[in-house]
Amino acid sequence: MVGGGQLARMTAAAAVGLGATFRVLSESEKESAALVTHDVTVGSHLSLPDISAFAAECDVITFDHEHVPGAILANLESDGVLVRPGSGALRYTQDKLAMRERLSALGVPCPRFAPAASLADVAAFAGGTWPVVLKAVSGGYDGKGVWVCESTGEVEDVLSLGIPLMAEEFVPFKRELAALVARSPSGQGAAYPVVETVQVDGICREVIAPAPGLSADTAVEAEAMALKIAAELGVTGLLAVELFETSHGGLLVNELAMRPHNSGHWTIEGARTSQFEQHLRAVLDLPLGSCTPPEGTFTVMANLLGGTDPDVFDRYIHVMAADPAVKVHFYGKEVRVGRKIGHVTIVGGPEDDVAEVRDRARRAASYLRWGTEDGD
Amino acid sequence: MVGGGQLARMTAAAAVGLGATFRVLSESEKESAALVTHDVTVGSHLSLPDISAFAAECDVITFDHEHVPGAILANLESDGVLVRPGSGALRYTQDKLAMRERLSALGVPCPRFAPAASLADVAAFAGGTWPVVLKAVSGGYDGKGVWVCESTGEVEDVLSLGIPLMAEEFVPFKRELAALVARSPSGQGAAYPVVETVQVDGICREVIAPAPGLSADTAVEAEAMALKIAAELGVTGLLAVELFETSHGGLLVNELAMRPHNSGHWTIEGARTSQFEQHLRAVLDLPLGSCTPPEGTFTVMANLLGGTDPDVFDRYIHVMAADPAVKVHFYGKEVRVGRKIGHVTIVGGPEDDVAEVRDRARRAASYLRWGTEDGD
Repeated sequence: MVGGGQLARMTAAAAVGLGATFRVLSESEKESAALVTHDVTVGSHLSLPDISAFAAECDVITFDHEHVPGAILANLESDGVLVRPGSGALRYTQDKLAMRERLSALGVPCPRFAPAASLADVAAFAGGTWPVVLKAVSGGYDGKGVWVCESTGEVEDVLSLGIPLMAEEFVPFKRELAALVARSPSGQGAAYPVVETVQVDGICREVIAPAPGLSADTAVEAEAMALKIAAELGVTGLLAVELFETSHGGLLVNELAMRPHNSGHWTIEGARTSQFEQHLRAVLDLPLGSCTPPEGTFTVMANLLGGTDPDVFDRYIHVMAADPAVKVHFYGKEVRVGRKIGHVTIVGGPEDDVAEVRDRARRAASYLRWGTEDGD
Repeated sequence: MVGGGQLARMTAAAAVGLGATFRVLSESEKESAALVTHDVTVGSHLSLPDISAFAAECDVITFDHEHVPGAILANLESDGVLVRPGSGALRYTQDKLAMRERLSALGVPCPRFAPAASLADVAAFAGGTWPVVLKAVSGGYDGKGVWVCESTGEVEDVLSLGIPLMAEEFVPFKRELAALVARSPSGQGAAYPVVETVQVDGICREVIAPAPGLSADTAVEAEAMALKIAAELGVTGLLAVELFETSHGGLLVNELAMRPHNSGHWTIEGARTSQFEQHLRAVLDLPLGSCTPPEGTFTVMANLLGGTDPDVFDRYIHVMAADPAVKVHFYGKEVRVGRKIGHVTIVGGPEDDVAEVRDRARRAASYLRWGTEDGD
């Protein structure tokens, strides 16, 4: 796996049971995954020689992020390296305009969009209706690279950054959902239950699996849409489709990711096969595992963001004592304010109330962050 | 953790989420845990200098087996090393006669026993009633070091081995159970549901959690007995108590282990806190996690023993395809006939039938071993 972040860290743990030899290409010895992986190569994902040397020691390579340049991916492929997902699929995570064009051509519902090279482009797209969303065509994540503009003045500020942009309609969604599927090179597909994701300032804060109150029709529509996108784009591995559920119940695709995804962390405890094992099974072209939760269960995941006190372990003890059913996952990262440093998961049963379990998960995450149960 | 076997391997995976830095002292780079652990020290658990050097890099040391000599443990403790469980507790796993004497003094029900230094001792113990069980006072596991003798002739054969022995009554048990508890240095205790274990030739082959049809009274009795033993013996970490359920419903203690135990592998998927995380929490004196399975679920684990074909991965694919809900755990060990090389786990829900899930687990393990679903 190229990239040494928390996704690679959790994939390393999944590889243990699978019996697969797992190596990581990490920018330093101190990255999240490098701290817990036996086979660590230090190198840059922006360097073809580094990745080539790493790939020579692997049967197949995959990624914990989308930041390997397309030219490097194509080079590896022409050298015969098994790259999963391949460059042909990954380009749609690196170029949002290409993604929108391709999905629209496939008939997949998306927000209205247009290239945005100039103020005139954006003004024409807006047609007098504000706000308009501007997005960096490549490189954004966790709310970075997305601007909700209320006026041409705000658009000018974003244009002045001088990066390739696109415009999208502002969708007044009811809530956000995510559909996570896996697809193997043999063409097998598997879909996890659709989840609700709660974002604050563009950062995922909570996931409830399955999405409460989602109609069976909408759930099936979302799963089918994700499986279709995975097949049409030739994805091998996981595909996460971030969705808007609009006020009239329709679905629009927001973003795509082709790797384990924050919206799937709940699967470690909550599903029969974790997303990390599933990604490995898919990229190794092994038969996929069951995506279903044990009957009658649901899961809440809350992200743990860094607070102002770096010593999270002092607070950890109190959270463990207060709620023995909370499962805390630390990523081994230095604490910085707002940085994702871990997550907590609680599995509920038929007698549990979703709102109450969400509240417990939130309180645990808040206490770990701020030392109080009612922070944010 | 001293010892590089599969218990350390699965503990390494549990340490990832906990955010604890995990090191292993392994006899070679190729042992099960050494293959997946970032911090591996190669050294011998029989060498005080090796363990001392290893312990100097750790806040606390614990074990994946009972084979570190008592004198070494005592030495480490007098040097101020935190050894958990400590030598005072571990001696009862290294000296079965001392264990029997101590448990009997505590009023814990055990099979009748006696020292067996000579044929006369054993004959007097038998009083004409055969069979009699002879056990090596130390060092036995997985059925090794246990002899069921039907006559004085068979006793003579065992005595001729020249090792310290004890005699025990042969218990015609209805079935075997195991009670797994954790105890922290602060004195907190936590008990997993009592499980049924199925042994063949002294090797654990299947575990059903919780034990089907066990009365609530007997379950509580077994849990209370295990918690009492842990407290009285000063165990820190896990304590597994192997039990006989006699034909009239009573319980007798068979063996003790003070570490993660084969009868607890089901907890990885089946309980809110796995035994591996629980052992770490206990030896680190962190609050213990919830031992309960998600409501309405049960779990079957089947051990995977080596067959005659070393390439288990060829067969793995078919098992994955045949039953996507089976979770296979490989230990990264070379395949040898009869060797524990992994295990499989299936979690069942309220609508599932225990016998059917056992059958699926058995078929998966059999196929992985022999390439046929109806091997043993």
